Formats: sequence, structure tokens, C-alpha cells
Amino acid sequence: MIDKLVVVGVGLIGGSLALDLKHAGLVRRVVGIGRSPENMARALQLQVIDEATSDYAAAADADLVLIATPVGQMGRVMAGLAPVLGPHTIVTDAGSTKRDVAALYRQHLPDHLPRCLPAHPIAGSDLSGASAARYGLYQDRHVVLCPLAETAPATVELVGRLWQSCGARLVQLSTEEHDAVFASVSHLPHLLAFSYVNGVLDRPHAEASFELASTGFRDFTRIAGSHAEMWRDIALANRVPLLAELSAFEARLTALRAALEAADGAALHELFERASAARQRWGKHSGL
Amino acid sequence: MIDKLVVVGVGLIGGSLALDLKHAGLVRRVVGIGRSPENMARALQLQVIDEATSDYAAAADADLVLIATPVGQMGRVMAGLAPVLGPHTIVTDAGSTKRDVAALYRQHLPDHLPRCLPAHPIAGSDLSGASAARYGLYQDRHVVLCPLAETAPATVELVGRLWQSCGARLVQLSTEEHDAVFASVSHLPHLLAFSYVNGVLDRPHAEASFELASTGFRDFTRIAGSHAEMWRDIALANRVPLLAELSAFEARLTALRAALEAADGAALHELFERASAARQRWGKHSGL
Repeated sequence: MIDKLVVVGVGLIGGSLALDLKHAGLVRRVVGIGRSPENMARALQLQVIDEATSDYAAAADADLVLIATPVGQMGRVMAGLAPVLGPHTIVTDAGSTKRDVAALYRQHLPDHLPRCLPAHPIAGSDLSGASAARYGLYQDRHVVLCPLAETAPATVELVGRLWQSCGARLVQLSTEEHDAVFASVSHLPHLLAFSYVNGVLDRPHAEASFELASTGFRDFTRIAGSHAEMWRDIALANRVPLLAELSAFEARLTALRAALEAADGAALHELFERASAARQRWGKHSGL
Repeated sequence: MIDKLVVVGVGLIGGSLALDLKHAGLVRRVVGIGRSPENMARALQLQVIDEATSDYAAAADADLVLIATPVGQMGRVMAGLAPVLGPHTIVTDAGSTKRDVAALYRQHLPDHLPRCLPAHPIAGSDLSGASAARYGLYQDRHVVLCPLAETAPATVELVGRLWQSCGARLVQLSTEEHDAVFASVSHLPHLLAFSYVNGVLDRPHAEASFELASTGFRDFTRIAGSHAEMWRDIALANRVPLLAELSAFEARLTALRAALEAADGAALHELFERASAARQRWGKHSGL
């Protein structure tokens, strides 16, 4: 049971956690910190939060602060929290990259690290403000916890227990592992899909191609419709692991090209069969 | 109105055309030619066809022969048809590549070319026999017609009219344009998806990656679960245009890598924004 939860950035991610924790009776009071008066008014009206402010002093006596803003704003938020934070307050976040956020904790809250826990709940990225918050968002979703070397076990336990109470499944990774995994299964596919669509646009037969594209194209390129600014920030924040994933993929294409140039049916079949079997296993296992 | 339609390969594609044409009263009698007695019995039972045989002589007095087998079998089928085909019989097909099929027409039916029309209906590839055939499969789907230089206008008109009577939208392309377009919007994405999944499998963090992969991964890799043998055949049949598409895509990745290595946020934003806008336009326009 927590007396005071402060959510910085009251949108889908932070708002949904607040709703679930209040519903479960695990938090007495939720204070939202945000810069948009309209969004804060909406959050109050929907009872996602109990109080709204733009003053970081509200975090002084909080049990837990969740930073749920875009990663690009987290440095500024931590700088605002640093002078006011009480010694017992736990700070966690919901950023989609973790090495850079860990560095921000070290930079802005160097004396507070035992109570800091970088984390990443894997749930929709449609961050459309407080009205997007909803009960049950985290049911059966993964939450990745990336404790720093300095993070106290009690910090990991408290934050972990709260996420679990929302139905989430905990996974613990180092910040490096986290960023490599998401470079591999999320960031690289986005960059490939963007690049692929740009490629089709510039081919001589582009018009007929878009006209005749069907369901395979639709699914393969869905993530290419994503928000350019958000993905620029993610690509920059995670560029080192992403470059490693890109290199590994380019090596794959080189092997594919060799098999295709040689018209090597056996090699092509082996490549396709291995991927097809793995993707079918994943589909069954993931339930997605 | 057609008196006798012969369908070689009675599955989803050929069977569904037969059903629609009979339902529209545009064909009096459908004869199926196939090698699997079980499939032919099922086709008769479901009234997809009126007669079943394995003898190409049944095509002798047909008005129209549709070859709806996998492309790899079409040479054998045409060789079987060649000695029996009457002079007025029109021959068309439903193969997913067109330059190779056009070459087969030239090789096996050189004296019959005015009555030959390579074609490609864009409909599901789940070729699971006669029981997959259904009414309305072609409603609002594209059918690409690729007339040879020798194909008579009356041949194009008759085949086109039949497809249109099933609700299909006709698109006319040269065999070269067809193969380039499908290399771009279908074949390349399949090969990229296969390669990407193989890449994830071989990364040091593969297990956590598959565990944490979510909806973006699911959609991007759906086509990687496709049938390896079928895609080996398509890749081999269309390898020249496919290599051209692959080269163009590799050049895209090189540009992406340069922007990422330079941490050039403006360049990344421009790449992502262009793709995102194009994908969103396509989503609205295509209705898919």
C-alpha cells in the first residue's frame, strides 16, 4: 500500500497504471504533474488523478514517482525533481530505451540511485493524453525492469509488485540487454519498413505497385505509418545497438543475394524453411 | 456465354472462378483436370465442376482452358494440352509470375499464341484444394492481364469480360511490368521478412527477443510464416527482377546507415516522414 503516487506525464501509460493501482486499493492518492492544463483537467475529470500541478515540489513526500513522459523530456523532469525529492521516494519510468535513461538517472539523481529503477512496460505507444488511460491495459503484458548496480532490492521489489498487481509479467534485463532486444524486435523492423516504403516510392513502377499491393504488403508496412518524430528520437537514443542489428541484417541480405544470384534453390529453401518454422512457433507460443 | 470451361488444377483459384461463372450463367459445363482423385471427387461433390478427368483430351473442344496449377507444373500441363487443343480454344492461367509463363506458352503452344493470355488474379494464396473454392472470391480484387504481342484482342476481351463478371478489376501490364511490380510489393517483402526472422534467431539475445516481441513484430513478420517451397519457386522464377528490387533496397539501407552513423536527426526524420505519409495515404486509398 502506497500513500502518494506522483505521475509525471499523465497519458496512456502513466494514467492506466494510476487507474489500476487505485482500483486495486494499492494507492491512496495520485498527483499528476504535467504542462498541459487541458490534459490535467481531463485527467482530474476522469478521476485518473486526484490532484494536478505543474510544480515538482509535489513529489517531495511521494512514495513513488513514475516518469511517463517521452524519453526526450526525462532529463528535464529529473532536473526538476532533483532539488525537491525526499530521501525515501522511489523513482521509476516507462521509457522505451533504457541505457540513455539510466545515464540520466546517474546525471541528475546521483545520490538517489538506490531508489531509482529504469523500467519499460510493453504496451501500446498511442500516447494520446489522459483520456487514453484505461483499466486493465497491463493485463498479461510484459514489464521490463532494468535495475542499476546501485538500485536497492527493496526498490525492485516494490515497483515489481505494483506492476504485477496490474496483471503484468515481469522480465528483468540489464539496460544493455533491453536496448539490444528492442533494437532487434522493434526498432530495426520499423526502420526496415520505413526504408522499404521509400524504396517502393522511388521505383519506376511505383504507381502500379501501390495499386496492386495487397494484404502481405499491408501487414509488412503497417509500422511504416508510425510517427516520424517519435521514431527519429528512438533511433537516435538507441543508435549503437540499432547499428549492430542493422549490420547483422545486412549480412543476411548478402547471403540471400548470393543464393538468389546462384539460383541456389536448396539454399533458398533452407533459409525460408528455417524462418517459416520459427515464425509459426512464435505465433503459437506468443498468442499474438 | 461459354459452353465448356476446362479448369486444370481445381483449387481455390480455379474452383472459385468456376463457381462464379456458373452462378452468373456464363458457362454451361465445367470440366476439371487434376491428378488427385480425392480432390476431384471433392470438387464434383461440391459442384465446383461437372466432370472430372485426368485426360487432357477433355480440353479438345473447350471454349476456355484455365491453368490454375502452381507455376512449376505449367510446362507439363501445356505439353499435355498441345497435341489435343482445338484451334478456337482460348488458354489462360493464374500463375503468380508472368515472364516465365509467357515463355512456356511460346515453347509449348507456338502456333496457338493468338488464343493464349497470361494472367494473374490477385487473391489469397492458400491453395488448399477444391474445398477452398468459394463464391465471390474475386469481388473487388485485381486481375492482371499480360497479353503477348501475338495475343488477339478478342482473346483479351473474352477473358477480361469473364473476370469482370466475377467483380474483378482488370489491370493490363506487360509481363515485365507485372514481374517487376510483384517483385517490389510482394516477393521482396517476403524475402526481407524471412531474412529478418533468421537474423533474430541468430542474435545472442534471441530468446528474450522472441519473448518480448509484440504486435509490430507480429505484423511485420506474418509473411515469414509462408510456405518455404512455394516461395523458393517464386524467388527462382522471378529472380532477375527480384535482384533489382533487392539492390534498390540495399541502397536504401546504406543511406539509412549513413544517417544513423552520423546521428543525423534531420535526415532520419525526413526518411521516416516520407514513408509514414506514403503508407498512411496508401492505407486510406487501398481500403485494406
